[in-house]
Amino acid sequence: MKLPSSEAELIAQIRGRITPAPGVVLGIGDDCAIVRPRGSAEDWLYTTDLLIEGTHFLRATHTAADVGWKALARGLSDIAAMGGTPRFCLLSLALGDWVDARWVDGFYRGLLRLAGRSGATLIGGDVARTAHVTCDIVVAGTVARGKALRRDRARAGDAIYVSGALGGSAHGFATESGKAWSRHKRPEPRLALGRFLREQVGATAAMDLSDGLSLDLRRMCLASRVRAEITAPPVFPGASLEQALHGGEDYELLFTVRAGTRVPPDFEGLALQQIGTMRKGKPGVVVLDGAPLPALGYDHLRSL
Amino acid sequence: MKLPSSEAELIAQIRGRITPAPGVVLGIGDDCAIVRPRGSAEDWLYTTDLLIEGTHFLRATHTAADVGWKALARGLSDIAAMGGTPRFCLLSLALGDWVDARWVDGFYRGLLRLAGRSGATLIGGDVARTAHVTCDIVVAGTVARGKALRRDRARAGDAIYVSGALGGSAHGFATESGKAWSRHKRPEPRLALGRFLREQVGATAAMDLSDGLSLDLRRMCLASRVRAEITAPPVFPGASLEQALHGGEDYELLFTVRAGTRVPPDFEGLALQQIGTMRKGKPGVVVLDGAPLPALGYDHLRSL
Repeated sequence: MKLPSSEAELIAQIRGRITPAPGVVLGIGDDCAIVRPRGSAEDWLYTTDLLIEGTHFLRATHTAADVGWKALARGLSDIAAMGGTPRFCLLSLALGDWVDARWVDGFYRGLLRLAGRSGATLIGGDVARTAHVTCDIVVAGTVARGKALRRDRARAGDAIYVSGALGGSAHGFATESGKAWSRHKRPEPRLALGRFLREQVGATAAMDLSDGLSLDLRRMCLASRVRAEITAPPVFPGASLEQALHGGEDYELLFTVRAGTRVPPDFEGLALQQIGTMRKGKPGVVVLDGAPLPALGYDHLRSL
Repeated sequence: MKLPSSEAELIAQIRGRITPAPGVVLGIGDDCAIVRPRGSAEDWLYTTDLLIEGTHFLRATHTAADVGWKALARGLSDIAAMGGTPRFCLLSLALGDWVDARWVDGFYRGLLRLAGRSGATLIGGDVARTAHVTCDIVVAGTVARGKALRRDRARAGDAIYVSGALGGSAHGFATESGKAWSRHKRPEPRLALGRFLREQVGATAAMDLSDGLSLDLRRMCLASRVRAEITAPPVFPGASLEQALHGGEDYELLFTVRAGTRVPPDFEGLALQQIGTMRKGKPGVVVLDGAPLPALGYDHLRSL
């Protein structure tokens, strides 16, 4: 039996075993699944994201409120990537042995603060115990019918953009200080930007940068059957180019627009910078300043 | 700060911190949350359920396909309890260190078999690594607008019923043999029964028996502000009365009907038996043959 050596391969294996269902506009493989409820004026977006002690956060360095915030922020970022508006969330929370009531309280404080701000009302979930704290957040959002931004809609000739500056989360995780550390602990889902890109800019494709530009751009290229030619992306102050290219958890948006589309230099103070162009060629290939860029971003299954 | 000493208390604490949102018919506290999408002809049901190695299954005794089946069955049982029809599911799967590709393949085989049979198409999810296998299943279903069976609608005078025989899962877990063991490993979500109770019987309230009759009936009584007087429930062959009263994971349905409602003795071969009556009195109290029944069912937070 063939081993899945990456998340992409596992996803491909599973997709091949699933029969499409009525009302499901888009299934496995993008930031969110898209469902069209019977009679609904809008499409619904669904995403789930795990946040695990020891993998995504450390007990010693992340406060309970940081963890709650980040658990939800990861899901909201997926809704942002498709230009959606958050509607509700559900949370499954497996508490580690060391967790006490104060931690639980802080966790929900962090989560509910972001939920209140973003409109993702907590409507349900599950609770259990285990060795390491494991949170799974489910976020649902809505988007105008047929208008969700997808990663498989970029075309050769499209300009490639990123929001903000990259590598901040990886740099913060390494140094545990300054603005980069805050960026790592309390990522800001780019919800308003996602809606702006969909409604005002007319972006052709979008996804969030959760696993590193090199890997995420490769995924967009694979989904859209194109190759990408880029130059160095904007680097977060203090971070290295390596961190900006391969570091995960920046939660900025990666998007494309048709050639000639006017994109403002910033959106509400957040820079929007062109980093390259989509080209015809071998799908999935990313070229940085003329040389192939290896997809070194974070893949949970690489060692499986 | 007050310690949450039970799931119920934690839920109560969280509920008090949440502002109701438009379109959310029912939030935290029942088997599923209920959402009414704008323009939709149906209500949508959402539930999440954790399945954790060492808590809900053991690596040594449960095959990968058993685990995949059970992960989804738990969520489907919640949809069944509200009389809904499954529409799709999402799966977040954190793989343990010991997991290999064969296990992953078997897991998805078990899950997709039940998904295909029940109509809960897998449309998305997440994957990660951790110490112990942790699955979180999200199931969405639909139900006619305003018609979902809830646990807070039982009234004094209603007859209390259970489907099937109880204690099989606990007995199977203890003996690892026979039909009880199959019951534990491959629970059957009572989807057709749930719809029958809603559409044909006109049940007033329902929930699934996941944590043991003593605790689940107490939850229904608390939600409906009534007390219950019951006699011994039907006991799964080989199981003890203790297992039938307090053992979890039977995934049968607990439901109530108005006094005088005709309930058939079985549904498609599955027995439907009256075990008691709802009464006015202290909410949450359950009396078995005249003596108070302690709620000894499974509560993940009891030791927190």
